[in-house]
Amino acid sequence: MLNKKVKVGIVGGTGYTGVELLRLLANHPNVEIVAVTSRGDAGLPVADMFPSLRGYINVVFSDPENTDLAECDVVFFATPHGVAMNQTPTLLLADTKVIDLAADFRLQDVVAFKKWYEMTHSCPDVLKEAVYGIPELNRDKIKSANVIANPGCYPTTVLLGLVPLLEQKLIDFSSPIIADAKSGVSGAGRKASVATLFAEASDNMKAYGLSGHRHHPEIDAQLKQLAGNELQFIFVPHLIPMIRGMLSTLYIKLADSAKNVDLQSLYEERYATEYFVDVLPQGVLPETRSVRGSNHLRIALQQQVNGYLTIVVVQDNLVKGAAGQAVQNMNVMFELDEKAGLDVVPLMP
Amino acid sequence: MLNKKVKVGIVGGTGYTGVELLRLLANHPNVEIVAVTSRGDAGLPVADMFPSLRGYINVVFSDPENTDLAECDVVFFATPHGVAMNQTPTLLLADTKVIDLAADFRLQDVVAFKKWYEMTHSCPDVLKEAVYGIPELNRDKIKSANVIANPGCYPTTVLLGLVPLLEQKLIDFSSPIIADAKSGVSGAGRKASVATLFAEASDNMKAYGLSGHRHHPEIDAQLKQLAGNELQFIFVPHLIPMIRGMLSTLYIKLADSAKNVDLQSLYEERYATEYFVDVLPQGVLPETRSVRGSNHLRIALQQQVNGYLTIVVVQDNLVKGAAGQAVQNMNVMFELDEKAGLDVVPLMP
Amino acid sequence: MLNKKVKVGIVGGTGYTGVELLRLLANHPNVEIVAVTSRGDAGLPVADMFPSLRGYINVVFSDPENTDLAECDVVFFATPHGVAMNQTPTLLLADTKVIDLAADFRLQDVVAFKKWYEMTHSCPDVLKEAVYGIPELNRDKIKSANVIANPGCYPTTVLLGLVPLLEQKLIDFSSPIIADAKSGVSGAGRKASVATLFAEASDNMKAYGLSGHRHHPEIDAQLKQLAGNELQFIFVPHLIPMIRGMLSTLYIKLADSAKNVDLQSLYEERYATEYFVDVLPQGVLPETRSVRGSNHLRIALQQQVNGYLTIVVVQDNLVKGAAGQAVQNMNVMFELDEKAGLDVVPLMP
Amino acid sequence: MLNKKVKVGIVGGTGYTGVELLRLLANHPNVEIVAVTSRGDAGLPVADMFPSLRGYINVVFSDPENTDLAECDVVFFATPHGVAMNQTPTLLLADTKVIDLAADFRLQDVVAFKKWYEMTHSCPDVLKEAVYGIPELNRDKIKSANVIANPGCYPTTVLLGLVPLLEQKLIDFSSPIIADAKSGVSGAGRKASVATLFAEASDNMKAYGLSGHRHHPEIDAQLKQLAGNELQFIFVPHLIPMIRGMLSTLYIKLADSAKNVDLQSLYEERYATEYFVDVLPQGVLPETRSVRGSNHLRIALQQQVNGYLTIVVVQDNLVKGAAGQAVQNMNVMFELDEKAGLDVVPLMP
Repeated sequence: MLNKKVKVGIVGGTGYTGVELLRLLANHPNVEIVAVTSRGDAGLPVADMFPSLRGYINVVFSDPENTDLAECDVVFFATPHGVAMNQTPTLLLADTKVIDLAADFRLQDVVAFKKWYEMTHSCPDVLKEAVYGIPELNRDKIKSANVIANPGCYPTTVLLGLVPLLEQKLIDFSSPIIADAKSGVSGAGRKASVATLFAEASDNMKAYGLSGHRHHPEIDAQLKQLAGNELQFIFVPHLIPMIRGMLSTLYIKLADSAKNVDLQSLYEERYATEYFVDVLPQGVLPETRSVRGSNHLRIALQQQVNGYLTIVVVQDNLVKGAAGQAVQNMNVMFELDEKAGLDVVPLMP
Repeated sequence: MLNKKVKVGIVGGTGYTGVELLRLLANHPNVEIVAVTSRGDAGLPVADMFPSLRGYINVVFSDPENTDLAECDVVFFATPHGVAMNQTPTLLLADTKVIDLAADFRLQDVVAFKKWYEMTHSCPDVLKEAVYGIPELNRDKIKSANVIANPGCYPTTVLLGLVPLLEQKLIDFSSPIIADAKSGVSGAGRKASVATLFAEASDNMKAYGLSGHRHHPEIDAQLKQLAGNELQFIFVPHLIPMIRGMLSTLYIKLADSAKNVDLQSLYEERYATEYFVDVLPQGVLPETRSVRGSNHLRIALQQQVNGYLTIVVVQDNLVKGAAGQAVQNMNVMFELDEKAGLDVVPLMP
Repeated sequence: MLNKKVKVGIVGGTGYTGVELLRLLANHPNVEIVAVTSRGDAGLPVADMFPSLRGYINVVFSDPENTDLAECDVVFFATPHGVAMNQTPTLLLADTKVIDLAADFRLQDVVAFKKWYEMTHSCPDVLKEAVYGIPELNRDKIKSANVIANPGCYPTTVLLGLVPLLEQKLIDFSSPIIADAKSGVSGAGRKASVATLFAEASDNMKAYGLSGHRHHPEIDAQLKQLAGNELQFIFVPHLIPMIRGMLSTLYIKLADSAKNVDLQSLYEERYATEYFVDVLPQGVLPETRSVRGSNHLRIALQQQVNGYLTIVVVQDNLVKGAAGQAVQNMNVMFELDEKAGLDVVPLMP
Repeated sequence: MLNKKVKVGIVGGTGYTGVELLRLLANHPNVEIVAVTSRGDAGLPVADMFPSLRGYINVVFSDPENTDLAECDVVFFATPHGVAMNQTPTLLLADTKVIDLAADFRLQDVVAFKKWYEMTHSCPDVLKEAVYGIPELNRDKIKSANVIANPGCYPTTVLLGLVPLLEQKLIDFSSPIIADAKSGVSGAGRKASVATLFAEASDNMKAYGLSGHRHHPEIDAQLKQLAGNELQFIFVPHLIPMIRGMLSTLYIKLADSAKNVDLQSLYEERYATEYFVDVLPQGVLPETRSVRGSNHLRIALQQQVNGYLTIVVVQDNLVKGAAGQAVQNMNVMFELDEKAGLDVVPLMP
């Protein structure tokens, strides 16, 4: 482990993933926050925009033009899609690592990237080296990675919910994998918008993105890679009147080979050494608030009729679904305690 | 149509379905509320418990022992399960019709009733005559019925969401029908309980009842009857931090025969004359608040990969899912305008 | 009463007061909606933007440039401040009455208007004739008015909460009148904004406008006119995580002359014939939800130490606080039943 | 500072203050949780009731009868009123200190205690020695105290909001001090109750306790002691649809002597060394979420007309208003770092 502190830069500190990074890093014992950039708010103390950080974060937003991020050991991009890929090659030349919380490095298929994000990938070579940042799946690769694609919020729940089955080839792919996913409203980001106003989103819910959501190709590609197989994936996200929290209900058909497998034990064993993944006892179902503010993700299993299995997964969409996983990735990359900065007890009630 | 007003009694007026009946009946042009009973609150003016009804409802809660419900033309039971079946035979002798908002007449199978509700059915003969009260399915039978089993909230969304497909035999039953359903908290009723406290249920969500929910056998039985077929049904309800509102996301595999069918038109035509069922235009998805306080139910369809179809259905769980449907059933039974008392514009925002 | 329907135009139908007018007018027996204008959404069916109105409102948003509002008997302005005053003189020439839900005609003092709204009043002569539209205070003037200044949401609660005392000179003005007011978030309007996002405004509250809120001079001027006296007025509004609802807690020092007055009876008598104002029995306090969706306003009184009185007033900010009061004003102006279109039972829960 | 860990017992660990103590103590570096008692849930692992504590708290609820609390260095009572006073004398004999989060030691006047809590105080001698536990007021006394009366949630906001003025005699007591206070619903506790159900308390607010609230005499007595003066105090609490959070808006008349005082500086200086009290810059108003989950309390001042001052104070009712302050008191009593266990960054959004 390094003796000196990791120098951290954050590009785009005014959104929810940005302020969440600041919350987690404020108490991180091995980190020094060097710069937080914001084009629109340069010169403003960060804690003036986010009074929750008064006394914890004394940095002032800096203009990206005047900020030398190459000084940093690692830069988090909490920006709109497309920003990170433009700056990453330069940072890599300066031996600065990159963790992108947007989508620039999530899809290895640049054609799919262009289709879903409506921009041409600017550095396909860097993309090839980028590691998909779920430590529970790719810890070794993350250790030596220079560029991390921090996963989308939905994908983390679906993938960690299915990994034990995929690894053991226990899914019957003749039926589609269905993910009926529910997200709190902070997932839509901190930008002025009518659809996510309190008076629109409160006491209300809806499905959205049925005809196509950007996390569909991301999950689909990861599932296929894990399965080593073609498969069909149906994904329906829903917007729920919660600030934070994500719950995904997964429906899969078990392969015949699963008949004699104790699935509960399989999951418990797969995640026995994973601090942030909690397999609940048989019969217990998770609530989203049980992980509010924390990097934990909880999983429950329930057998259904006819060889079907339902898997319920919860996480805090801003923590394990975004900023917490990013910090976890950083911890792995810099050989820090993987829990450093992340050992926050969930807030209940 | 009767020239005089329908005399209405309500047994159990202190829960959410009870007060919702009162809200709808308060402005019903053809109804006279004769009695609202409550064992615990006899003597209390109804509007003292529910100040929203001040000026609209002048009735005082009466003790069930001292209330002659046989005077009524129809009695609504907004009671715990098991109350209606004990009083119904006597009321029928007095030519009083019964609409039960609890489950006493929902399951024709008395063995299943005993299993799920942990009580022996007290009047299986009456049960046989009882009509399952979804007017869009059973209008003719309701017209001449003496006892209505007002459906559960979840079943109404699932059944109306699938009826056009079931009637036309367009579902491939080799895969299960999956209903991932989400309900506002009022569905849990107005009874003191820790799990549904504001500080527990707000900013939080969960799945529940995975190992068995009472609406499962109810939906299952109706589906099989409509299908004329065996089928597998998976049902996962979720609790959402909304006061009112229910959204069910249904996943089915289409039969080969569906390939050349215009499903959007099929739904629009099936419900063209149904005032309370609204098939949304292709590509439009419903929000629960679009039916807040009203008896409307809205449906949207979305084709998925691999011959699967997703159907999204929303309703207000207390209106079309309970009291509104009960009033609609009453209107049909007494040959009133089916919209009487129910022509309330949804409250938005 | 007119035999034919009142022809209504709405300028600015896309905000919360606009859609609320539509909800109430949809079922109004004496109204024909002739036009709903929107510069940005011309051509769009109103019910496409607000699916809650599907089946109730078949009008298409029209471009203000191409809409002849002079055909209307009355035009509601549900627009930003400054729009109504520019169009009103022309409409008056065409014998079209105007009800402005914005602030253009609320302040008779044009200097104060310029200070608070940062624009010069364009028609001070029309302003002089405008009537402040609280029917319970100014019914006779409203009957013959051509231009109505529909009051702000906060002012309605403060004024109706104090009128009986002001009329009877029972307040000691040596102490200030204090209004600690709380509003649901819909009061901030339906415009894209970070501060009123669900993830910002939910599970959170704050005071705002302490250094000056536009409703302060409006209330102040009305209080002084009703009092016929100088007085000091302190006003602190708060933003509460509710969609709808407003509660104002008023603190006043009673004059010595109040000592022998039965204040409860005073209030009950003052409002005995006012359908929309409900004085609660001694000891009962109002909840905002008891008026959700309705034009009622409820008042409770509580004597405090040392000759102080606390008055608690609730209303739905979008109904009695905006669109409902506007419709009530229209009903008075056109000699319709004052309750027409407004006899909606509050939605509870 | 002690080298070994403080042994802590918690009586009544199933309510919100109990689980909040556990959240804060779970990460406290100087504490060992020895016992958590619950009469009703003895034998149940604490983390089974509160899954948010899985992995953090491994204690099992123990039966109070079989738990030797005298082993503990300090016992927290997170119980209904009346429990602590019965057990405290015995614990003191065993040199165990007591921090009561209920009201048993808050009112020095036993007559008032009997009136408001409807029970006779069982140990008036112990009561006399008890210290009112706001470290910012009574730090020295707390250091040597054996029994702490942890204040009510409302009193902490009112007292810390007024202390600088009271200490400097800057209030004109000819006018009453008015506290218009707003609390999130968790303040009502974790007990089954209809009034605080989600479907009752959500999207709704109300004033309550106008005719008398138990925190009135508590605040009143403390104010008078701090003022060294008679004074009139008006207190109106309100219930707000938030899980956590409390905002008190205070209205006072300034004494003539305040005219030349820079009140902003006065407050900043008074609290300059208080880690948990944050005086906001002039013109900035606090939101409750800016302290969500943390022990901070924020204060803002605003001058009003006519020599009146408005003070706005926010805190998390469960932290600085209850469990956090209790831990802060413990830290002071045991000469630990006052921030130990309490250095949690507020959760935003």
